[in-house]
Amino acid sequence: MTGTHPFDDAVHLDAIDAEVWRGRTHPEWANMVGPFGGITAAIMVRAIDVHPDRIGEPLALTVNFAAPVADGAFDLSLRVVRTNRTNQHWYVELSQEGAVKATATAVFATARDSWADTEARPPNAPPPEAIAPTGMGHVVLWADLYDMRFVEGPLPGADGLPDSSSTTTLWARDKAQRPVDYPALAAVCDVFYPRVFLRRGVIMPAGTISLTTYFLADRHQLDAVGGDFVLATAHAHRFSGGYFDQSAQVWTREGALLATTHQIVYFKG
Amino acid sequence: MTGTHPFDDAVHLDAIDAEVWRGRTHPEWANMVGPFGGITAAIMVRAIDVHPDRIGEPLALTVNFAAPVADGAFDLSLRVVRTNRTNQHWYVELSQEGAVKATATAVFATARDSWADTEARPPNAPPPEAIAPTGMGHVVLWADLYDMRFVEGPLPGADGLPDSSSTTTLWARDKAQRPVDYPALAAVCDVFYPRVFLRRGVIMPAGTISLTTYFLADRHQLDAVGGDFVLATAHAHRFSGGYFDQSAQVWTREGALLATTHQIVYFKG
Repeated sequence: MTGTHPFDDAVHLDAIDAEVWRGRTHPEWANMVGPFGGITAAIMVRAIDVHPDRIGEPLALTVNFAAPVADGAFDLSLRVVRTNRTNQHWYVELSQEGAVKATATAVFATARDSWADTEARPPNAPPPEAIAPTGMGHVVLWADLYDMRFVEGPLPGADGLPDSSSTTTLWARDKAQRPVDYPALAAVCDVFYPRVFLRRGVIMPAGTISLTTYFLADRHQLDAVGGDFVLATAHAHRFSGGYFDQSAQVWTREGALLATTHQIVYFKG
Repeated sequence: MTGTHPFDDAVHLDAIDAEVWRGRTHPEWANMVGPFGGITAAIMVRAIDVHPDRIGEPLALTVNFAAPVADGAFDLSLRVVRTNRTNQHWYVELSQEGAVKATATAVFATARDSWADTEARPPNAPPPEAIAPTGMGHVVLWADLYDMRFVEGPLPGADGLPDSSSTTTLWARDKAQRPVDYPALAAVCDVFYPRVFLRRGVIMPAGTISLTTYFLADRHQLDAVGGDFVLATAHAHRFSGGYFDQSAQVWTREGALLATTHQIVYFKG
């Protein structure tokens, strides 16, 4: 089966046996080197989601990008490390011809009744309809699959200057308005270009090494998003020794915090 | 060999074979259930650090706490997933009698010359010498191994009231002033009691499920800390469905950002 949308195509997996699934890269999701990290994260979530032993919904995901995924087929091997009453721990490896290209650990969990509060506040932003959909200027192919409207910190152009802030805030939406599910949320958590581009005002070699996402939305909140925009904001704390860290949040238009997400990024410059 | 300090005792490991190391729990590091998560994180870092194939220094660590570690011996099995020119990916499992209790993925990396800047700013805090060492009131044993001086958000007492902020900021120092190395930094990244205690003004069942730390200090900066206090600050973004997320930073007295660290926590209340 092939989906009718690039996202569904990209996360499509064929069962090889009970613990191994095969997928393939899709040229429209290409990043500077290999595929968009967000689509790899989405594939990891999707692989667990369709596993017959899976309980609950995604709560935490860490993807380590060990080497570029080459164009073509890849295998995902899944293992349930531990199943508890209300949560389950997974380990996943993505490999090509025997070489591991990415690993993931994930916690899936069932929500329970509890005290609840969102202490964080969404960034100030005009509605997406008030902002031009500038996107990321065709620098990477995958970015053209999203409608991106920058509130703050767009990708620097050819005349870019250093910025004292690493904060980017944007509205992002799947251009085909495919509904946001957990795999799609995992993908959009990596929608930001590297923060060092903004601070330095130039594009340079850079790539995510490790990406962690906490899924804070329940399925009802996620379903309510449908194919609408989400408001995504990211900043870095420290750049040093060729690496920087990034922390980000993804909000709904109504002010629900869907996810917090963090990553450590390699850069050369 | 047994160290002369509780931290060195706790991270001591005996080689079983090339990929398996044996450690044991130590009663002075006990938490509400099982050992302090920070000491488990420290043991993971230490196990990789002493492995003959290890290159570089810790850059990213994610520990998933799958089940409580029981009192007694545990085995760590280590695997190099991938070695690149400037970084290396690891997978570690901590098990007892064949059952996995915790997993970790780690990236070790060599620092390279690059543009550098610390964009984040440390929280405002008087020097530790101006604050009484109140600690955490002997609620958990491990906390008594640290000299804790709260700038903001101490552990609620018996007359605790709900707080509108989940922020805790404290100076923390190993009471025996053992120098801070990467394992010790991994441990202190988990020095915070659960944020929900502060918001609700009461202690309730709670525990970290997944902990991610980005090590941003180079060894020179870490060596400069010695046995001094670090300034640690943490806050939560959202509490929902029995879970909350926490983001935190660890700073030196001189304003160097040693680490950023994030976790997702279970709570019942």
